[in-house]
Amino acid sequence: MPQLGFLHGRAWAALLGQLRRPPGAVCIGAVRSHSQGPEVAEATLASQLKPHKEKPNFILKTPKGTRDFSPQQMVVREKILDMVVSCFKRHGAKRLDTPAFELKEMLTERYGEDSGLIYDLKDQGGELLSLRYDLTVPFARYLAMNKVKKMKRYHVGKVWRRESPTIVQGRYREFCQCDFDIAGHFDPMIPDAECVKIMCEILSGLQLGDFLIKVNDRRLLDGIFAVCGVPESKFHAICSSVDKLDKMSWKDVRHEMVAKRGLAPEVADRIGDYVQCHGGVSLVEDMLQDPELSRNKQALEGLGDLKLLFDYLTLFGIAEKISFDLSLARGLDYYTGVIYEAVLLQTPAQAGEEPLNVGSVAAGGRYDGLVGMFDPKGHTVPCVGLSIGVERIFSIVEQRMKTFGEKIRTTETQVFVATPQKNFLRERLKLIAELWDAGIKAELMYKNNPKLLTQLHYSEDMGIPLVVIIGEQELKEGFIKLRSVASREEVAIKRENLVAEIQKRLSES
Amino acid sequence: MPQLGFLHGRAWAALLGQLRRPPGAVCIGAVRSHSQGPEVAEATLASQLKPHKEKPNFILKTPKGTRDFSPQQMVVREKILDMVVSCFKRHGAKRLDTPAFELKEMLTERYGEDSGLIYDLKDQGGELLSLRYDLTVPFARYLAMNKVKKMKRYHVGKVWRRESPTIVQGRYREFCQCDFDIAGHFDPMIPDAECVKIMCEILSGLQLGDFLIKVNDRRLLDGIFAVCGVPESKFHAICSSVDKLDKMSWKDVRHEMVAKRGLAPEVADRIGDYVQCHGGVSLVEDMLQDPELSRNKQALEGLGDLKLLFDYLTLFGIAEKISFDLSLARGLDYYTGVIYEAVLLQTPAQAGEEPLNVGSVAAGGRYDGLVGMFDPKGHTVPCVGLSIGVERIFSIVEQRMKTFGEKIRTTETQVFVATPQKNFLRERLKLIAELWDAGIKAELMYKNNPKLLTQLHYSEDMGIPLVVIIGEQELKEGFIKLRSVASREEVAIKRENLVAEIQKRLSES
Repeated sequence: MPQLGFLHGRAWAALLGQLRRPPGAVCIGAVRSHSQGPEVAEATLASQLKPHKEKPNFILKTPKGTRDFSPQQMVVREKILDMVVSCFKRHGAKRLDTPAFELKEMLTERYGEDSGLIYDLKDQGGELLSLRYDLTVPFARYLAMNKVKKMKRYHVGKVWRRESPTIVQGRYREFCQCDFDIAGHFDPMIPDAECVKIMCEILSGLQLGDFLIKVNDRRLLDGIFAVCGVPESKFHAICSSVDKLDKMSWKDVRHEMVAKRGLAPEVADRIGDYVQCHGGVSLVEDMLQDPELSRNKQALEGLGDLKLLFDYLTLFGIAEKISFDLSLARGLDYYTGVIYEAVLLQTPAQAGEEPLNVGSVAAGGRYDGLVGMFDPKGHTVPCVGLSIGVERIFSIVEQRMKTFGEKIRTTETQVFVATPQKNFLRERLKLIAELWDAGIKAELMYKNNPKLLTQLHYSEDMGIPLVVIIGEQELKEGFIKLRSVASREEVAIKRENLVAEIQKRLSES
Repeated sequence: MPQLGFLHGRAWAALLGQLRRPPGAVCIGAVRSHSQGPEVAEATLASQLKPHKEKPNFILKTPKGTRDFSPQQMVVREKILDMVVSCFKRHGAKRLDTPAFELKEMLTERYGEDSGLIYDLKDQGGELLSLRYDLTVPFARYLAMNKVKKMKRYHVGKVWRRESPTIVQGRYREFCQCDFDIAGHFDPMIPDAECVKIMCEILSGLQLGDFLIKVNDRRLLDGIFAVCGVPESKFHAICSSVDKLDKMSWKDVRHEMVAKRGLAPEVADRIGDYVQCHGGVSLVEDMLQDPELSRNKQALEGLGDLKLLFDYLTLFGIAEKISFDLSLARGLDYYTGVIYEAVLLQTPAQAGEEPLNVGSVAAGGRYDGLVGMFDPKGHTVPCVGLSIGVERIFSIVEQRMKTFGEKIRTTETQVFVATPQKNFLRERLKLIAELWDAGIKAELMYKNNPKLLTQLHYSEDMGIPLVVIIGEQELKEGFIKLRSVASREEVAIKRENLVAEIQKRLSES
């Protein structure tokens, strides 16, 4: 299993070291100190050169459920995203991007009970719009709109959901999704197996600890519901109830089925006998022997495909990571076949850390009907895909920060241009432009006369490996000092050889 | 000036070759063919296994002013963004990210006449939100909220503006911005000069043709307005009018000043004498001699800083790219000092191409008052920055596509796993998992029995360099065929040496 270099041992530790929690909101007094009218406020704004005396009368924060990402956090996020994307590319996917919002009607009726979580835009004239809720529906819309019949694509982007106010365990109202999907008519379960393989590769590569991938099939669930005596009109509602089994006990789910969904208690009990089962491929075999299920076409199809899936995943060498789990239902309406969800088996808590229940970190499934809902002639394009819950993965990594203490660099600067001399700004500017033009990452102090010690301290603090020091005497003789920050060793380099020497040192390190 | 390898000659041509226009919207009959009620529609949705017969009654499109990006487009976008970001990193910037939406009140009164273009979210209970209009205001909000007094950051992200309906010349309602800003109290014009240098490096690196960077100063404009007799309450409005000089003649702008803004004709004429001037550093010197302007404190400050800016830009070796242009005003309200804007001097049109007027491709300036507007105590943090108009740059590249015809790869797949044999899926799956686990980018056909020719054609079409061919005979003897797609040469490799041989070949290529 390929693992990223950056995630090994001390490097990983280093990466996690300097992470900080998203900065807390700062509350500002909501009452203006002077009773200034709006005209006065406007006049103040209109002349921005005057110092701004008036206190802003709002709370200085990001919207509820959203957050800024500091440079430290961005370094970690980008490393995680790079790893995910490199896996998607390893499997031959192309990149696609779609707008942040869609026509409202595109999203209507796609998400079942979760539709209320969609953010709508205000009607300011023109089209009615909603922020995208996931990356799957925009993908299906893209396929239908462009009559694409076959495509393997990935998409990394933000999605928005008006989740309940408590932000716990990495649940936010704005979050990033990394999706990989395969669209097209193919032989059964080959792309499906690749999707599960990809989840395995990513979770192994990120070294988040042991994990398990639960698999199930929507047709099997429908078959079970039919066999147990659930009216077809209630399939979706009951499926939503089953989906809660990862957070609620069977007793509570059963109560919901009976009290809220209006199911007969004996029907609920029959469902309970099934959905509390989990096991390996032998459980698939057992269920194929079930006299009632084996007479149900949908259940048979689901079980047959699950058997094939296990076969392929064994060839991929990952069968031991898979659990056939009948309680897995997946909330979204659009799944039509196999569904899967990766869960971490143990929290990566170190001694002294609070355990962090992050739940599912990746999930997906087959949705053969979605594109057809957008297509003018109802032509279907079968699809299967997965989504990586990078925010949850990011939460785990943030949790780890408490344990590791090494510094991570938030810049890539290679050379700092310093001087001990006063009035040497012009020399520094000339030199740094030379470095930039040679492609060298370089910084200097934005001061006419900075202190040498300040410049050297900054270079050390920021982990910049080299410092170029220009002094009057050396410059007269045509030399410039090059200092290695780690060894504090300084050598004089001929001015005309400086760029080449720096490039040589950087290529060696 | 560092230029990206990918942009040279044939490589650049190759990159542009396969670009396509964003796919057009497909219109679907807006009338349902059957008079089905909503209940029927729900029932249809509820049973997704049944083929979806009902035609969707909406237009299949992206929202007005937005578009999808196809894999071909994404390859080019990512190369352009990589180049921009690598320049930002060369100058020591850290990456920051902020939410797509802000509290509505954060954006209120920041954008002058453009405030009407802000997208608001629907009031669904809770906070009132708006989509961000740029990346500058969120940056200022971040600095104030976290009491950050010094920061050099970059931010790449989408912003949204309800621009007028005609989408011409790369103007969209959703577009990407690449911002670089330096916040903090420093000696005059050093960070400002670096910002202009960065614009130069990026535009040179992208090889979009010759360009010019116009510079001016808001204090100078205010000084001119004062000297000409504009009442202070009209400074912003008159500044907005001046800003239109790149699209309108002086005659029309003068008319707006008099008829719409209520300026006396002789005052407008005096403004006209100034704002139609442009030149180099000598024009700065000339204006410093202007008897009236030289008595105006703001004008003097602006001119003094412009002189210093020219000095630093000369040291950077880019003075010949700079034009001091008094007609440059910049639309946004928040600028307080130097302002600049990069324009392409000639369209990159090839023979037979339509000329494309893309206007400004990068712009920015100093905004010393913005952070103070957010800070509870009004503490200011002076800032200067720039924004790269990547959509416009992207438009130019799309325009070029008509001229160049070479193929660009949308995937990075290195090896295709093929077979001439029937019933060889299991062998292919075992082998490809081995490749994936070794970090090799590999694909196969999702078919039980694909034709060999189809597999080889696919590899050629997609530009995949190597094909592994598993046959029954070879496998018995412990060999696998490795085919170079370019030379069509095939060699037999021992099964256990296959991964090492592939890695060797890939590292050599």
